Amino acid sequence: MLYHVRMDVRIPRDLPPAEVTAILAREKAYSQDLQASGKWRHIWRLAGEYANFSIFDVSSNDELHQILSGLPLFPFMEIQVTPLLRHPSSIREDDS
Amino acid sequence: MLYHVRMDVRIPRDLPPAEVTAILAREKAYSQDLQASGKWRHIWRLAGEYANFSIFDVSSNDELHQILSGLPLFPFMEIQVTPLLRHPSSIREDDS
Amino acid sequence: MLYHVRMDVRIPRDLPPAEVTAILAREKAYSQDLQASGKWRHIWRLAGEYANFSIFDVSSNDELHQILSGLPLFPFMEIQVTPLLRHPSSIREDDS
Amino acid sequence: MLYHVRMDVRIPRDLPPAEVTAILAREKAYSQDLQASGKWRHIWRLAGEYANFSIFDVSSNDELHQILSGLPLFPFMEIQVTPLLRHPSSIREDDS
Amino acid sequence: MLYHVRMDVRIPRDLPPAEVTAILAREKAYSQDLQASGKWRHIWRLAGEYANFSIFDVSSNDELHQILSGLPLFPFMEIQVTPLLRHPSSIREDDS
Amino acid sequence: MLYHVRMDVRIPRDLPPAEVTAILAREKAYSQDLQASGKWRHIWRLAGEYANFSIFDVSSNDELHQILSGLPLFPFMEIQVTPLLRHPSSIREDDS
Amino acid sequence: MLYHVRMDVRIPRDLPPAEVTAILAREKAYSQDLQASGKWRHIWRLAGEYANFSIFDVSSNDELHQILSGLPLFPFMEIQVTPLLRHPSSIREDDS
Amino acid sequence: MLYHVRMDVRIPRDLPPAEVTAILAREKAYSQDLQASGKWRHIWRLAGEYANFSIFDVSSNDELHQILSGLPLFPFMEIQVTPLLRHPSSIREDDS
Amino acid sequence: MLYHVRMDVRIPRDLPPAEVTAILAREKAYSQDLQASGKWRHIWRLAGEYANFSIFDVSSNDELHQILSGLPLFPFMEIQVTPLLRHPSSIREDDS
Amino acid sequence: MLYHVRMDVRIPRDLPPAEVTAILAREKAYSQDLQASGKWRHIWRLAGEYANFSIFDVSSNDELHQILSGLPLFPFMEIQVTPLLRHPSSIREDDS
Repeated sequence: MLYHVRMDVRIPRDLPPAEVTAILAREKAYSQDLQASGKWRHIWRLAGEYANFSIFDVSSNDELHQILSGLPLFPFMEIQVTPLLRHPSSIREDDS
Repeated sequence: MLYHVRMDVRIPRDLPPAEVTAILAREKAYSQDLQASGKWRHIWRLAGEYANFSIFDVSSNDELHQILSGLPLFPFMEIQVTPLLRHPSSIREDDS
Repeated sequence: MLYHVRMDVRIPRDLPPAEVTAILAREKAYSQDLQASGKWRHIWRLAGEYANFSIFDVSSNDELHQILSGLPLFPFMEIQVTPLLRHPSSIREDDS
Repeated sequence: MLYHVRMDVRIPRDLPPAEVTAILAREKAYSQDLQASGKWRHIWRLAGEYANFSIFDVSSNDELHQILSGLPLFPFMEIQVTPLLRHPSSIREDDS
Repeated sequence: MLYHVRMDVRIPRDLPPAEVTAILAREKAYSQDLQASGKWRHIWRLAGEYANFSIFDVSSNDELHQILSGLPLFPFMEIQVTPLLRHPSSIREDDS
Repeated sequence: MLYHVRMDVRIPRDLPPAEVTAILAREKAYSQDLQASGKWRHIWRLAGEYANFSIFDVSSNDELHQILSGLPLFPFMEIQVTPLLRHPSSIREDDS
Repeated sequence: MLYHVRMDVRIPRDLPPAEVTAILAREKAYSQDLQASGKWRHIWRLAGEYANFSIFDVSSNDELHQILSGLPLFPFMEIQVTPLLRHPSSIREDDS
Repeated sequence: MLYHVRMDVRIPRDLPPAEVTAILAREKAYSQDLQASGKWRHIWRLAGEYANFSIFDVSSNDELHQILSGLPLFPFMEIQVTPLLRHPSSIREDDS
Repeated sequence: MLYHVRMDVRIPRDLPPAEVTAILAREKAYSQDLQASGKWRHIWRLAGEYANFSIFDVSSNDELHQILSGLPLFPFMEIQVTPLLRHPSSIREDDS
Repeated sequence: MLYHVRMDVRIPRDLPPAEVTAILAREKAYSQDLQASGKWRHIWRLAGEYANFSIFDVSSNDELHQILSGLPLFPFMEIQVTPLLRHPSSIREDDS
């Protein structure tokens, strides 16, 4: 089941640089594991913004929340979730 | 080059039903041709809304505009474009 | 799986009264069938507004969309969907 | 009498972790006591957000305010109240 | 129990003048009956706008909704309800 | 002359508790003096919010501003003023 | 007593041109009479918009409302009122 | 050439009082010099807010910006500029 | 003197096609004359929208308003004006 | 390919003045290099605001993002990107 998620990152200026580096490394690993598993289907950067649009393919609202609230950057992100479904005009097998 | 597009459809109530049917058929054919060509990469319906999120892969802002303004439903849609790029954490070959 | 839905009804003034009456009767029957089936868990009126908050319990985003887009009042409603999950503090068995 | 309440939690980063833990424990106990009493009818988490939708069943606006302003997290929450009533299409005995 | 209500009136231009006059007369009588009964405690015009702020004193959310949805101008108004309670600094007996 | 005022209180977390207590005591005395004088006609708490709706009866915009800017909590409040007048449907002598 | 008023004009397209012309002539005369009397102190056009900022000098909220609601264009305007007072830094005699 | 400017002042709480006093004194002198020169035509306080509406009469966008960005309070203000012109209904010589 | 203008076009559906064609032809000629004169410095289409960003170089707010309000499409556009000036980092001779 | 970018600068008050000076110098050099290269086509200041409108001419969304995210002020700016294309009415060779 697909969900569209917009994430805007706002890292506080007073976070020590070493901590930022560590969080970003954990975030990247966390994201890439989920991409490899197929649950995090797509991730794109928005031009000019510290933000991404992502597509998740998970079994439930609950699984989506567990993934998002487990993001190392979760305390520093604004997140907006939109549930998706197959569009009747889609011809792609992997759009649902 | 990738673009994220949100389209909200608002068909006026006084459009004759036959005209609506014809426009929707043309819209579907137009969309599926562009999907087949690879330019309209993804299209998803938003749950509960007459709207879609789409991903386009075109060569320029100009080509994107020609495609969008040529949509049979263009006069009846609100459209919001966001330019995208490859996210540094992406592991998918087709996310750029 | 639970979803929170807000529906705001805007019936156009030029809809013939008999048609309005018929749509409202179909809407009520449609809603009550879904309530009886357990899929439309709750529905409440907002004081002073022609609007409701509802809770749906369905198997997927897709099933939710089929239900909502099938509402006789769908063309005359503004709909906002929020996916829900069990709250960690909930003590009620039926809150998930 | 029913009320719909949305609560968004924003815990300041400079609150000592021990204090946060203590507040969250008090919040959970406070909420579960009110759920057990029947005054806090429902509580659901919004997917991807540190927020909940809740339904309260209390005797007055005043009682609702006493409950909400007594929440251990009250100083760190944004709260939005909507008074509800039984929907004319509801078939459930406990929707009012 | 007190409620603060803002009403913005938007009478459609194509309503026949005789119908407007009749609705406004019914609205005035309806309002004055409720004022006389004590349920509609206050009503003030906003300077420069076709709008009012009102205070209602009713026994429940349900009674408030029955009153508001029964307004002859209800189909032509935008209504916003805020539940109130006695302020701890109030010294007036009739502020609750 | 009547004015409708909404005040939202946001006390900064780093204000020393003793200072907060002193400000709140001064605020209460200030408000009750003005209520006793008849200039602060009404004050109500909004359910679930640290905010009030108030009605002032003063001789001019200037007098209103002197009162509001003299509030001990003024530096910590967001204030919104709406000038009012007697509503043509009002039957109460004290609604103007 | 001074008030700042923003007026945005939206004349419906289906108003007969002769009626528009007549309303605009009445509006101009009405405005100029009030300017001559000193009650309508200033009026400026906003560049690129069918809108004005005006300053009124009247004795009460009530007088302001009678003037604004008597504007021939009142049914076709969106109006926003802000009560003003003399600024402590002003050196002009006529800024209050 | 006239411009309408709204200025909202937000002085940070951690600015030392002596510094605030000094800035405010410089701001007042700066404003009064410009008023005396005729470039700052009007300034009014908004009732209940730490804000002003001002009218400037300067020779260009550039001159307006040099004046506004030179305000001692500039770093602590939110500023909104609207270019004005003579209204066709104005009868005052000094409204342009 | 430079101004940034955003224009959003909303042509009503019930305007006869011949009239639309005529207006658009007049609009194009009007725009191109002003471009040729150097007063309408730039015009760009926004991708996916019936809108443009333009830069005008005129001698005053008044001249800008005469140009904009004379646009054949003026009754069908929403217009937003921002006064500009030379940026201190600009190295281009024609950016002011 | 052209893009319209709005940048609003918000430099935190606790940044040491020497650091601010250094960042601004680097920002100016960075901007002027890109202007000299032709990639940063235009930059204008908004009257009364610490903000600019800029036009970029780059080969892709990706190149635009690399430029914007490399701005020394990037961590202190709010950025809004709009993809542009040649307007059908443009007569200028360099508007595309």
